[in-house]
Amino acid sequence: MTDSHILVSEVGPRDGLQSIDAILPTAVKNAWIRAQAEAGFKEIEVGSFVPPKVLPQMADTAEVVREALNVAGLNVAVLVPNLRGAENAIAAGAHKISIPFSVSETHSLKNVRRTHDQMIEEVRSIAALVAEQKVPPHFEAGLSTAFGCTIEGPVSEDLVVRSAERLMDAGVAEVGLSDTTGYANPAQVKRLVRKVQAAVGKEHITGVHLHNTRGLGLANALAAIEEGITTVDSSLGGIGGCPFAPGASGNIVTEDLVFMLEAMGLNTGIDIEKLLAVRTILSEALPNEPLYGFTPDAGLPKGF
Amino acid sequence: MTDSHILVSEVGPRDGLQSIDAILPTAVKNAWIRAQAEAGFKEIEVGSFVPPKVLPQMADTAEVVREALNVAGLNVAVLVPNLRGAENAIAAGAHKISIPFSVSETHSLKNVRRTHDQMIEEVRSIAALVAEQKVPPHFEAGLSTAFGCTIEGPVSEDLVVRSAERLMDAGVAEVGLSDTTGYANPAQVKRLVRKVQAAVGKEHITGVHLHNTRGLGLANALAAIEEGITTVDSSLGGIGGCPFAPGASGNIVTEDLVFMLEAMGLNTGIDIEKLLAVRTILSEALPNEPLYGFTPDAGLPKGF
Repeated sequence: MTDSHILVSEVGPRDGLQSIDAILPTAVKNAWIRAQAEAGFKEIEVGSFVPPKVLPQMADTAEVVREALNVAGLNVAVLVPNLRGAENAIAAGAHKISIPFSVSETHSLKNVRRTHDQMIEEVRSIAALVAEQKVPPHFEAGLSTAFGCTIEGPVSEDLVVRSAERLMDAGVAEVGLSDTTGYANPAQVKRLVRKVQAAVGKEHITGVHLHNTRGLGLANALAAIEEGITTVDSSLGGIGGCPFAPGASGNIVTEDLVFMLEAMGLNTGIDIEKLLAVRTILSEALPNEPLYGFTPDAGLPKGF
Repeated sequence: MTDSHILVSEVGPRDGLQSIDAILPTAVKNAWIRAQAEAGFKEIEVGSFVPPKVLPQMADTAEVVREALNVAGLNVAVLVPNLRGAENAIAAGAHKISIPFSVSETHSLKNVRRTHDQMIEEVRSIAALVAEQKVPPHFEAGLSTAFGCTIEGPVSEDLVVRSAERLMDAGVAEVGLSDTTGYANPAQVKRLVRKVQAAVGKEHITGVHLHNTRGLGLANALAAIEEGITTVDSSLGGIGGCPFAPGASGNIVTEDLVFMLEAMGLNTGIDIEKLLAVRTILSEALPNEPLYGFTPDAGLPKGF
């Protein structure tokens, strides 16, 4: 590890909330985002531009983006599934736009009804739109199901690499690796990060999005960081959980990730005590949703 | 990693059971140990020789050891706090005897009412007794609170190293590092493993005993393995939990650890499907004790 700074990118307001039925009021989303930025977070994925019919939890994303733009120093990220979403994201003023590209084509067809070729064309259109902007947002593609697919099973590492190359060629600024299914293990994370780095250049793969479905989330994050990854996604309180594993958070729990990184002497810029206090916003607004995380229950070590 | 074989040492019948109030009947302990050995486990810590007044859960340890000795190919390990315990362990025929040495002297005084000097003398007496045996058991010392102490806070790494040297000098065959308090982080695990390896030789520190109190258990195990550690303790279903963290297992959950290692292509010799089936023995015998672990809930990845 040459750089001691790690960016913890909070995805709870998007990936966390989209997995639960309850709709968090816009004012609570805004308060959450603001409180977490005040705890030191430099990037938050605040929502996704998907049709409200599909995900009513995300219907207020434009409003949430506009409010988040008022938070000084915050990189406001959103997810978009297609060109239409990207148009809305740009209109709202998001700093960063991510599009998921499912390396498992079966998963892609089931999830967004698009083949790989169709997705690449969509990415190309978005890249053209991005390039037209006076202040272009950062445009990134997430290689979802990169570590395996619940439908196809194992996913070819060569296909991950080729997909990364095609996405770069289609105009994204960067690709990321996503363990959508919670199948990843540390050896695989290291191998795949190295392969994609070799294919597209280290500067074009800086982030991973990992799940904790089988409890390996932090071990996988460690593996990624050891290979030079500097951005790790996570979700406050692991909110949203994992539909397949009652006790498991979906995303890595932000609190445990930040504790691990800070304890290791890496620099996240985050105040853990302030971060732990942000949980109250969620627990009060979503009293029926379990919040995960070991560090919040155990507390920080004496003398930490 | 030069060696792809990792020994997962099951400590549930000792560390797991001693942390819960319920007393598991001897026959259930025996069935558990046998089933887990049949799933491929080569070493199980089956109990501890402590006064029954202190830990009534462990009162049948001699009987459990004798039964476990009938399981072909199983290394039968026990914990002892002192010479008296070691005498009983040897009389029962245990293959491996571990004594905890708390690097935090405050913790040592509180836990076993002994200073470091007194503990070293006790270790020396046990080593002499061990040496007298026709077939001497393997005698090991665990450096507990090596990563921090709930009373003292940070623990000096130099003191860990000096303690390891003193224990080797007093006659143990091997030392191990124990994260008794769940304070460890991966950077610290790597640093401390390297320091103790340098002091006593790689062959005299092969194992770690890690807790999952703050969710870092598997990340810490990964870090240890990357430094050449080949034995990792864990507990089936994380049984016993962690008194400070309601949702957290105390020890690393065996099922998740084995999944991680096997998924990484390391060789544990364990049949995961058989291992998952062993949980039923515990859930039926201890219906009020939560069993932890993500992999058992999520299931194995498709095509694993």
